[in-house]
Amino acid sequence: MNASPSPAGQVWAHVGQRFTPQNHDVVVVGAGRMGSACALYVRQLAPHLRVLLLEEGGLPNEDGATLLAPGVWSAREPSGERLEGERLEQARWTRRQLETAFGDVSFAPRPLIRLFAEAGPDRSPTADALAPWPDARAMVNAPALPFAEVEQDAATYRPGAVALAAARAAVAAGADLMLNARARPVPGGVVVERLTVTNTHQIVTHETHTLHAGVTILALGADGPSAAEHELGLHTAHARAYRQVPRLNVPSDDTTPILHAGGLTLRPQHGGFTLIPSIHHRDPHGYAPTGGRLTGVPTGLRRETLEDLVGLMDALPPLGTGALELGRSVSDVPGVWLALPGGRPGGLPQHQRLQDGVHLLLGGPQADTLGLAVAYDLAATVAEVRKRPWEKSGF
Amino acid sequence: MNASPSPAGQVWAHVGQRFTPQNHDVVVVGAGRMGSACALYVRQLAPHLRVLLLEEGGLPNEDGATLLAPGVWSAREPSGERLEGERLEQARWTRRQLETAFGDVSFAPRPLIRLFAEAGPDRSPTADALAPWPDARAMVNAPALPFAEVEQDAATYRPGAVALAAARAAVAAGADLMLNARARPVPGGVVVERLTVTNTHQIVTHETHTLHAGVTILALGADGPSAAEHELGLHTAHARAYRQVPRLNVPSDDTTPILHAGGLTLRPQHGGFTLIPSIHHRDPHGYAPTGGRLTGVPTGLRRETLEDLVGLMDALPPLGTGALELGRSVSDVPGVWLALPGGRPGGLPQHQRLQDGVHLLLGGPQADTLGLAVAYDLAATVAEVRKRPWEKSGF
Repeated sequence: MNASPSPAGQVWAHVGQRFTPQNHDVVVVGAGRMGSACALYVRQLAPHLRVLLLEEGGLPNEDGATLLAPGVWSAREPSGERLEGERLEQARWTRRQLETAFGDVSFAPRPLIRLFAEAGPDRSPTADALAPWPDARAMVNAPALPFAEVEQDAATYRPGAVALAAARAAVAAGADLMLNARARPVPGGVVVERLTVTNTHQIVTHETHTLHAGVTILALGADGPSAAEHELGLHTAHARAYRQVPRLNVPSDDTTPILHAGGLTLRPQHGGFTLIPSIHHRDPHGYAPTGGRLTGVPTGLRRETLEDLVGLMDALPPLGTGALELGRSVSDVPGVWLALPGGRPGGLPQHQRLQDGVHLLLGGPQADTLGLAVAYDLAATVAEVRKRPWEKSGF
Repeated sequence: MNASPSPAGQVWAHVGQRFTPQNHDVVVVGAGRMGSACALYVRQLAPHLRVLLLEEGGLPNEDGATLLAPGVWSAREPSGERLEGERLEQARWTRRQLETAFGDVSFAPRPLIRLFAEAGPDRSPTADALAPWPDARAMVNAPALPFAEVEQDAATYRPGAVALAAARAAVAAGADLMLNARARPVPGGVVVERLTVTNTHQIVTHETHTLHAGVTILALGADGPSAAEHELGLHTAHARAYRQVPRLNVPSDDTTPILHAGGLTLRPQHGGFTLIPSIHHRDPHGYAPTGGRLTGVPTGLRRETLEDLVGLMDALPPLGTGALELGRSVSDVPGVWLALPGGRPGGLPQHQRLQDGVHLLLGGPQADTLGLAVAYDLAATVAEVRKRPWEKSGF
């Protein structure tokens, strides 16, 4: 083992930079937060492994699920159930990483306040729970949601910033990075197309390389399972769903709590709120997102999400006002395909060995809370390291 | 009350038959099994009410969900849970109606055999349970599904024949029937378009009438909720799913039991089996059914159904053979939109008062077992009759 710091890796940002195929031990396809973090952790755990991180966009996470991820860390599942055991330890470790490992990712501890129509253990009156935040209190029709449960140590951050910082740190730790590169797995490695964009915005393949790698990691988000199937002929049980995250223009600031009611999360962001609707189930194969209608007027929000929001208008009156950006077509509302690990909306991040030397890495709806730990777990598996940093020494 | 039998109602089958708008007390839109039975029961319960049954097709149930309904009566929900209480009484009453009230609807009592990987109460070895039916036994890989639960008094029948017989009986009991008529609810009645088909198969509106009615019943299957919304501006919680029912060409006869495994029902029909896949969840608004791919080959089966069948190929080997009619495009595989009452795949048939004098009648996945009772219940509500025939006298 070499104790001296590795030199930084190479970066190919555009096709003007000549690329000569080299041998890599590990190729990570996709520089979202999962892939970027995994590349970084492989370099940290096994500095002898040559790592190449490939990204189709022009920046790590220029596009894709990471950029529109809510960035809400909570030790609960979307159902409200508390994480337990190793999953809780992984979540706590992910939280420490987010706080300390990636520089400024706008990490902001703040309470997450879940609102309910019924009483329950650990629930207090909504008016009391929201008393410190008059603006947030004004958003809630307290008689409709009279009970609140406060998760004090939730937090918000920017997943896109995590991806970018992780990719940079991976390069600093010696990983190579190629942008504007589309890759598909083939036996023993990947085929990489280097892309250029014409001045009419067409994407064309400039050159194609076959790269050998002992290990390929598919970190393609919602596209990972279909890549596994189309390129490797391997069917998986994973699925995907299209999640829109409309904006609610009600004032928020750095101290505003995250609110949650009836499956909907209201995440303070950019001086307003980003709404994160619950995912009820996968979308069927062949589904193309389409806008809905509200009292006859076309909206950019898909129908299922619109129905959920309409159902909450009584409890959260601002949803029934012009503060909700409904848009007029799907392109008006930010939205993205999200992987559903195991095909389930509650599926936790996971990695899966698809075949010898090929792994699938999936974040999905709970990537905000557990993604980095699962990326680490795969990196440690590849690096043949047994120890996990979240394990208590007593284990 | 008049004890003498009513004269038969009028029938308008095509636009050549002149129609002069008359007053009706009750207009039922849709002559599937739910609407036809409801029209019949209204006439039986309240012979003084003038009833008009409208159907867009050229025959009661020429098209639509009734025709492709499995026709499997079982005192269990799709989840396997037993019906209880009033629902069980309604199911038993529906079964007696199917046996006795509509003439020959191919009613055939036969066991429904549910196959499981795990042991459980009331389960016996699969080999024993299937011993009387060597052909059925040969379809099952018993080591993969070693346990069986036999529901002795299940039955099969033809829902399309029920719809036709019920519409005929309604007319015999004095209801009027108009075919080739598209109707939409308006305040105080319906607007009816009488349709003709050109020799280039275009459907054109020949004439339009506004009919007054004190009560309008929307029995439009999966289209009912959207009619309620588009015509009346009333949002409902109901949803729909597209169910394909592919054919499995493995021999069956009148004595072959119905088989059920992993959510899939195999219904003996026409000398083979019709496969009834489970419905996992609603399909999103804007979804257009599309075929899938099996090892790269296009199929007419939608992807979600294909996945379920692939998952059962080990347990039911004929699914992995050419006996399964996969088709090459969606039009090759029989399929239909099914209403999901309450938006849930397990939603039971129901009727719902939409506004003064307008009711929605929904069958859905459990219409085979409970549909007639719910149609009766609405008819009795409209007729202002309190007593239900399935109520025990002790009630």
